[in-house]
Amino acid sequence: MSNTQVTLVQIDNYGPWTVTPEPRREADLQTMQSRLYADISQFVGNRDGYTFFTRFDNMIAVTNGLSIDDHELLQESVSNRYPVTLSLGVATGTDPVQALADATASLQNAGSAQDKNRREILDGRVIDDDHRTDDDVQIAHFDVINATGQYTDELNAYDSFIEIEQGYAALMSHMRHSHDSLSFFVGGDNIIVVCPELGLPEYEAAIAHVEESVGVELQVGVGRGPTAHEAGFGAKHALETCRADGTRVELDW
Amino acid sequence: MSNTQVTLVQIDNYGPWTVTPEPRREADLQTMQSRLYADISQFVGNRDGYTFFTRFDNMIAVTNGLSIDDHELLQESVSNRYPVTLSLGVATGTDPVQALADATASLQNAGSAQDKNRREILDGRVIDDDHRTDDDVQIAHFDVINATGQYTDELNAYDSFIEIEQGYAALMSHMRHSHDSLSFFVGGDNIIVVCPELGLPEYEAAIAHVEESVGVELQVGVGRGPTAHEAGFGAKHALETCRADGTRVELDW
Amino acid sequence: MSNTQVTLVQIDNYGPWTVTPEPRREADLQTMQSRLYADISQFVGNRDGYTFFTRFDNMIAVTNGLSIDDHELLQESVSNRYPVTLSLGVATGTDPVQALADATASLQNAGSAQDKNRREILDGRVIDDDHRTDDDVQIAHFDVINATGQYTDELNAYDSFIEIEQGYAALMSHMRHSHDSLSFFVGGDNIIVVCPELGLPEYEAAIAHVEESVGVELQVGVGRGPTAHEAGFGAKHALETCRADGTRVELDW
Amino acid sequence: MSNTQVTLVQIDNYGPWTVTPEPRREADLQTMQSRLYADISQFVGNRDGYTFFTRFDNMIAVTNGLSIDDHELLQESVSNRYPVTLSLGVATGTDPVQALADATASLQNAGSAQDKNRREILDGRVIDDDHRTDDDVQIAHFDVINATGQYTDELNAYDSFIEIEQGYAALMSHMRHSHDSLSFFVGGDNIIVVCPELGLPEYEAAIAHVEESVGVELQVGVGRGPTAHEAGFGAKHALETCRADGTRVELDW
Repeated sequence: MSNTQVTLVQIDNYGPWTVTPEPRREADLQTMQSRLYADISQFVGNRDGYTFFTRFDNMIAVTNGLSIDDHELLQESVSNRYPVTLSLGVATGTDPVQALADATASLQNAGSAQDKNRREILDGRVIDDDHRTDDDVQIAHFDVINATGQYTDELNAYDSFIEIEQGYAALMSHMRHSHDSLSFFVGGDNIIVVCPELGLPEYEAAIAHVEESVGVELQVGVGRGPTAHEAGFGAKHALETCRADGTRVELDW
Repeated sequence: MSNTQVTLVQIDNYGPWTVTPEPRREADLQTMQSRLYADISQFVGNRDGYTFFTRFDNMIAVTNGLSIDDHELLQESVSNRYPVTLSLGVATGTDPVQALADATASLQNAGSAQDKNRREILDGRVIDDDHRTDDDVQIAHFDVINATGQYTDELNAYDSFIEIEQGYAALMSHMRHSHDSLSFFVGGDNIIVVCPELGLPEYEAAIAHVEESVGVELQVGVGRGPTAHEAGFGAKHALETCRADGTRVELDW
Repeated sequence: MSNTQVTLVQIDNYGPWTVTPEPRREADLQTMQSRLYADISQFVGNRDGYTFFTRFDNMIAVTNGLSIDDHELLQESVSNRYPVTLSLGVATGTDPVQALADATASLQNAGSAQDKNRREILDGRVIDDDHRTDDDVQIAHFDVINATGQYTDELNAYDSFIEIEQGYAALMSHMRHSHDSLSFFVGGDNIIVVCPELGLPEYEAAIAHVEESVGVELQVGVGRGPTAHEAGFGAKHALETCRADGTRVELDW
Repeated sequence: MSNTQVTLVQIDNYGPWTVTPEPRREADLQTMQSRLYADISQFVGNRDGYTFFTRFDNMIAVTNGLSIDDHELLQESVSNRYPVTLSLGVATGTDPVQALADATASLQNAGSAQDKNRREILDGRVIDDDHRTDDDVQIAHFDVINATGQYTDELNAYDSFIEIEQGYAALMSHMRHSHDSLSFFVGGDNIIVVCPELGLPEYEAAIAHVEESVGVELQVGVGRGPTAHEAGFGAKHALETCRADGTRVELDW
């Protein structure tokens, strides 16, 4: 049984900050939020978690293995180095979407994302060490078959991007509504999906759905582990097998 | 007449690098590519351009005001500080999509994005200083009406994200195919669009299209200027007027 | 009894790299090495260690609480994100200078710092968890009395800097040769010293020595703990007491 | 005739900030100030200036080629991305120490470095474009002869550092008081000196002084140019000649 620990990372009152006292330079906002994301990715990643940039002002992380103290340290470290602060909601469960919904609720209950008095909330719970297991996390790593040959080297860079985006949009919606999974574009032609326990038929169905609906051909490697890193590393190796052997789905177990 | 200078930034042979000799830690890849993007955004932004992360391995920048020497310095500085190198294609034109197509072609002609012998290409041309004008760049800055109240504070963080993504997917496709414009999600509920000369009816049509097709309500401020920053700053101020007055489209001229 | 765990962080073959194939832009080297230091400081600091930039190509860290696996992860993460790699030597002991000497020897035995075939050495040993105690680390945090009023607001910025540097040079030499301690300038007018077990008389003697030899007046807070962070936090609080009460030495125990 | 443009970069009210409301984590302060320095180094360096970290809360830059607008943009960009703000004093002159003294005075006149109401001062003047010449800046780049063989591979890392520091302390004091020059340690065994017009005898005397007083053997390359980068690049190439030919002083003109 999977048991995903999900953290919602929300920049406090970010929207108003970006236009106070007047709109800030866009390049500075882009730089600041990318670096903030990079720092969180590094902090969580060094503890074997994964962080996804999502909307940048709302980031989603898989944090199996991180304690509440770790979360508190992240908040403190960011507030010492950035002009903004973070609120964090943490929740766990067999269904990643439900876990994220619980994590979200813990922040929503504390006030609006644009309430200037709601700062540095830390709420929720983590998995006790003695309840952690070796298959708490299931990660699927998708990419587009021959994206470079079919798109990057053939179309203009924006039309390549539209193709990748369409594949992503189709997959994210399908995985969310049919399989309670959270899909994240992570650059290039790669999509990482945080899943409950799914098997071969579900991944084959997802690939078929994307190909039928938007014509984008995907392949996927899937891994399991006690942390996002270990599950994701299995998934990456399985995806290498797809690339080498021309298979469409590889499960690393 | 607009005259957009577009730069395609492509990490050389990035896909193979990420799995050589075996897959690299995902958190490190995310950190590295976000920081690389942040640095490029800062370099270009300090010269009044805009850079969009797009697929991260292929980034798109509006570089009016940057010379070929500036581009060369960016390449050199990145190669001195990162484990990867950049190729840059630059082109100009009244139609941003066509300019990007030309910029893309200059890299494609030099070899595949995954050709390990194709490194640090710099090709294309910039606008001569004496041909630059005060309305070379037109930028539209869209956001979602009451995104915090309707989505962030109400739905779980992933379903909010899906709503924003759907709005973006609908807008990007419409602006690309109906108006030769390049749309980029820039975080939160913000989308920045690089446009040729468009007027009120086109923006009203775009907003109506997105609302009809996916139910997401947008507003937009539009600016013009000699650089992306100046056009974008006008757009931001115009968008503030939308927020204050409840209007849907504001043109800053 | 103190038991300091010291890590020597050495960039592999860095000198030759900075001039190959010809000298690299100084600003890029400064940027790269400062950011590399910042990343190591963050990685080690998030595990309650301290890292000092020292010569930048050779950095010294107090790593009580970090395992060999942690060190390996740091090496891997840096090699995934930078154009250079790190070698790490780790050693422990009651005498910080001896521990550093042992850590240095483990790298020197593996080859020259400028041997291009010596890469990513990781050698040495850490303190077993069951041998760790609550006073393994002793940290002294010095600063200059009224540095802003006496120097920064009065002298030109370089002459202020010379005063601070002279105080530092006098302290580093005295603490090294009389008390087997490692002193590091950490910015502003602050010097952090990694000490064996020392008491009030040694700190009073050090302050007197610096005042007599170069005329710079120091005050110091001293803390102990199982990690550099905890010892250093005690030292910072003790130093606040000096500032509030006008005392010259405060021991936080 | 040299004409150095010097900028003093001072973090506003930094000391009090580091201990408010209580002392902040040292690793976060180190990370924040190193990255802030790196960003300034990159901003100034991309415009062919040099920035030296000095005390981190007070940094010194050679900014020939940067306008007052450039300085203002740097202030704005930092305030958009960091929890601290910068004050900048700019001055010019044939004597770098005098220029720095003038730059310092312009900030001191505006209030104390620890006055919480003195924020984002920008004062001073730059060299008019039509007064700039090809030898406004003279840079000397020193390093220690065979530092790796003599120190890094032989002594423990701290004693190597002490040797380098002693060489630096001796050089900085001599160059300041005998030659109105500003010397900065830049990592490894490298010291960069910002000079007025000096010739072979002065550099030979400086090397002899350091060898006699602390026994450290230096060599130096010297360059001139319209900017720090061009002067410094000449100096680096001249230093390569020292390394290749075994000479002690090389002038690149």
